[in-house]
Amino acid sequence: MVKKMNIVIVGLGNIGSYFYNYLNKNKNIIFNKTNTIPNILFVSAKSLSKKRNFNLPKKIWLKNSLSAAKIKNVDIIVELIGGSEGPAKKLVFAALKNKKHVITANKALVSKYGDQLSKIAEKNKVNFEFEAAVCGGIPIIRSIKEGLIANNINKIYGILNGTSNYILSSMDEEKLEYNEALLNAKKLGYAESNPDSDINGDDVAAKLKILTALSFNSFINNKTILVEGIKDIDQTDINNANKLGYKIKLIGVAESDSNKITQRVHPALIEKNSYIAKINGVLNAVIVESNPAGKTVLQGEGAGPGPTTSSLVSDLCSILRGNVKFPFVLSEKKRKFAIFKNIKDKKFSVYLRLDVKDKNGILSDITKIMAKNRVSVKRLIQNPTLNKKNASIIIITHEAKSSSFEKVLTVLKRKNYTVNHPKIIRIEKT
Amino acid sequence: MVKKMNIVIVGLGNIGSYFYNYLNKNKNIIFNKTNTIPNILFVSAKSLSKKRNFNLPKKIWLKNSLSAAKIKNVDIIVELIGGSEGPAKKLVFAALKNKKHVITANKALVSKYGDQLSKIAEKNKVNFEFEAAVCGGIPIIRSIKEGLIANNINKIYGILNGTSNYILSSMDEEKLEYNEALLNAKKLGYAESNPDSDINGDDVAAKLKILTALSFNSFINNKTILVEGIKDIDQTDINNANKLGYKIKLIGVAESDSNKITQRVHPALIEKNSYIAKINGVLNAVIVESNPAGKTVLQGEGAGPGPTTSSLVSDLCSILRGNVKFPFVLSEKKRKFAIFKNIKDKKFSVYLRLDVKDKNGILSDITKIMAKNRVSVKRLIQNPTLNKKNASIIIITHEAKSSSFEKVLTVLKRKNYTVNHPKIIRIEKT
Repeated sequence: MVKKMNIVIVGLGNIGSYFYNYLNKNKNIIFNKTNTIPNILFVSAKSLSKKRNFNLPKKIWLKNSLSAAKIKNVDIIVELIGGSEGPAKKLVFAALKNKKHVITANKALVSKYGDQLSKIAEKNKVNFEFEAAVCGGIPIIRSIKEGLIANNINKIYGILNGTSNYILSSMDEEKLEYNEALLNAKKLGYAESNPDSDINGDDVAAKLKILTALSFNSFINNKTILVEGIKDIDQTDINNANKLGYKIKLIGVAESDSNKITQRVHPALIEKNSYIAKINGVLNAVIVESNPAGKTVLQGEGAGPGPTTSSLVSDLCSILRGNVKFPFVLSEKKRKFAIFKNIKDKKFSVYLRLDVKDKNGILSDITKIMAKNRVSVKRLIQNPTLNKKNASIIIITHEAKSSSFEKVLTVLKRKNYTVNHPKIIRIEKT
Repeated sequence: MVKKMNIVIVGLGNIGSYFYNYLNKNKNIIFNKTNTIPNILFVSAKSLSKKRNFNLPKKIWLKNSLSAAKIKNVDIIVELIGGSEGPAKKLVFAALKNKKHVITANKALVSKYGDQLSKIAEKNKVNFEFEAAVCGGIPIIRSIKEGLIANNINKIYGILNGTSNYILSSMDEEKLEYNEALLNAKKLGYAESNPDSDINGDDVAAKLKILTALSFNSFINNKTILVEGIKDIDQTDINNANKLGYKIKLIGVAESDSNKITQRVHPALIEKNSYIAKINGVLNAVIVESNPAGKTVLQGEGAGPGPTTSSLVSDLCSILRGNVKFPFVLSEKKRKFAIFKNIKDKKFSVYLRLDVKDKNGILSDITKIMAKNRVSVKRLIQNPTLNKKNASIIIITHEAKSSSFEKVLTVLKRKNYTVNHPKIIRIEKT
């Protein structure tokens, strides 16, 4: 007898529509690969009457999406509503509780409730799959959970957001100011009308929290994470970085040092010739440093309906094949209450930039403040500003504790010779 | 009741020893990830008395490795003997016939007998896993079979051999001649005492054939494949390539054009600033172009006991979790008898190099030969050779059919003004 599994797709936006049409067209090939027929039993979305550029048979329309969780012959629910609360949350909790497999692309939901959801899935022996929630078409979750399962991961990092990377790349390549680059990104469909979470680092943070839990066998940690976005980066920074041999990238980094884990999202100066510095546009890249595999790099398209569907289907086929896995690699009982640390003791070199009034003794005062906080200068460039009234100072420091830079900044901000808010951008060795 | 699977490891060379020790140390973590105990029932190798730097309990020693296939409570056999014939072949065939799961790192065996073995595995509903056979620690096979399962792949290519890549990289970076670079590679353990298959392209060809079958849902094709190695590349070529803005790399490429598949392994000039040109040393990189995921890149360590063990354990965990898959993605009956084409009609730009006697009218004769065969010059550099008796001619051509270059070479070789054998290296756009 031929095996069949019944699927409900909830949410028919860009991604839901693409996925629905893909599945319709590729039923046979999926059967040939998994020995199981993927049968779309129902679809559900806000409005049946919304104009769509494809034909949606009325008989598969489910009015109340939440009811999918209780329909007996439903096997798999694909949640493509989005958002960490509301209908998406209700549906996914109800589905897993009712022993339905769940596939979701919802990083906000997974990074917030992933641990609770994982526990229910394990108890009920169903799959809770979220490959599409992190880096679109890059099979990074599957690689951590399956391809690299043998490995002790000590660092995972990369460029995890295409929108911000597009903005930084085009600021660099086309010499645009931040707002112009953002406008272009919106025009090209690379940024949503409300691009806040892409720009303020929240999107990267959600993905990083998921990757951290997967990589370090820990629970998701929402508290101990540094999140800085890109909106303070201007053309002067981009230009300075180039002169100094760097590119500016928004990175997400999780690493383990003496069994203590740090998570951080921030713009960073990255050596121009390094691999990461050359990931431009909407591309994503993830680097996994582990033992015994060494350094593994995965690169690809990080968003969009096509790449996201690639990941959704990969999750679907895993379920169709009966490949039941723990959602976060390890059994619930074996996941670690790992120690998470903030980065205040972590050492960085930084790029420090400030504009000051062009008067005697100021440079001496700045370096004194730095010395007092154990920050030493590696390189210093002083130039008159365009209006020639002030001086622009760029300092590349030697390594010092993160907390030391905070202290230096606090003092410098208060000085009456400081014209603009001084800023630091960490330098990341990759 | 706790699930347990019994494993026999056959072959205790570098990789077998590393894998055995890894498994001994990581039993618990593997159990926590798969819910199944990986129990080493037996190990077998050429000699029990061979000095090893680890303790091997006598009670798990199996004298006759082939008997593993017939022991009733054996579930999984890990074949690490190597070679496409002899004991490895006998063992793997016998194991699958007796419904044992098989894991192997043996690319020679898989590329030769993979189709037959796959058929037996499918019939007997056991896994036949060979992640470790292609690109060491890079989870490329799992990515094609699972992470990118949704995709229609139209091209897969990359740097698939660390030894040859190390040689070419060090010829470039340290300005070494081929033989010196090879000697260094041997000293550093990057080349075996007999490195023939790494250097003549056979190793890449074996990996490429496996990747081709996986990517295009076809059977393995051993006949229609171009295989050229790197031993004719000298420092002059490396130097010329640099001057022209290229690096020389040994690449493997499989692509589908109007449903016809070509497979080729050859050195290529690759634009200096492209991603592939920067993969240096013993690293491997695979690029998959597919729909709807787009372009996906996987990079990592391509060989060595650590990375290989990473892949073996990934296969093992898949079996322990009961993730039964078709070895070549699709069910046997659905795999395609695809059309494979040789590359004679495929168009390339090439680098053509020849030394000629420095006489009047020769250049005109060469360009006439080219024109007759529909090969046109894009760029030409003529310099006196070091001894000043001859002239060295480097031509970058426009695109022309592969077969046209063969004709040009045949004619040029016969000319009495030709001093050395003329050579061509294809230019690859990536």
